[in-house]
Amino acid sequence: MKNNASALRFTILLVILARLGASAQTETRSDTDAIFPKGQRAPTRNFTGTVWVQQLIEPDSAFNIPVGYVTFEPGARSHWHSHAGGQVLLAMGGIGYYQEQGKSIQILRKGDAVKCPPNVPHWHGASPTVGFMQVAVTPNTTKGRVTWMKPVTDEEYTNIRK
Amino acid sequence: MKNNASALRFTILLVILARLGASAQTETRSDTDAIFPKGQRAPTRNFTGTVWVQQLIEPDSAFNIPVGYVTFEPGARSHWHSHAGGQVLLAMGGIGYYQEQGKSIQILRKGDAVKCPPNVPHWHGASPTVGFMQVAVTPNTTKGRVTWMKPVTDEEYTNIRK
Repeated sequence: MKNNASALRFTILLVILARLGASAQTETRSDTDAIFPKGQRAPTRNFTGTVWVQQLIEPDSAFNIPVGYVTFEPGARSHWHSHAGGQVLLAMGGIGYYQEQGKSIQILRKGDAVKCPPNVPHWHGASPTVGFMQVAVTPNTTKGRVTWMKPVTDEEYTNIRK
Repeated sequence: MKNNASALRFTILLVILARLGASAQTETRSDTDAIFPKGQRAPTRNFTGTVWVQQLIEPDSAFNIPVGYVTFEPGARSHWHSHAGGQVLLAMGGIGYYQEQGKSIQILRKGDAVKCPPNVPHWHGASPTVGFMQVAVTPNTTKGRVTWMKPVTDEEYTNIRK
């Protein structure tokens, strides 16, 4: 019996070690799966909460189409804003919110693509409990890049159809 | 001894089952990690090899910035072409080749971003042994979307600095 109990403890230990090894592999995999780096903290004046931005294509006078990778931590969102030349958002991961003025909040998930029409006030960000990663493409910047407006209130942010 | 041998066999079985479980999880994870669907076969007239395209943002007269997700199987590449309004490529995975006329082939890896300047003939595709996935953003389409040219010969495709 003593031997059996010892063998059982050994079994449990081995199984735990095997699971831990598997978790460690998954962690590593998850790290190498990130396509773009998280970048730098975004200026706090235009966002609520913690937001990170990695510029992928820098603005350039000859061919001006800035592209950025944006990470919103849970609860974080942009202020209301508009783009004179419009913007395209590609949802890369997590759960995002997108709202145009006068419309309901739209949930964004990995693989979704959104066209923000020129001059339409809108905001985007993460859900309250899960962060959100997006690529943002800003074309037609000769017309203007972005006009910032007021912050998204908690009442606006939580006004979502369940 | 018989009990111990039996416990050892049980241990080995449990460890194998735990590893199998972990592999199954990793497989599932890998499937759900794909951000965009592979889409449809691209028209063969403008490509060498097998290429898949998923349109993410459809062309639209009001705000025309087509965005596509392109998967090149190993050895596949576009023909030489140019964009009157330029193009931005975002490397999403695999190993890609990108070459502008008169320059060396540039290797693209996950996270790289490339600006194809307006009217510069170029081509892009996968490496010979590893496929390549990219997002392509085509701005300023009022100037023209794409002008297709001749295929990339095997000599051009393999003329890479090791």
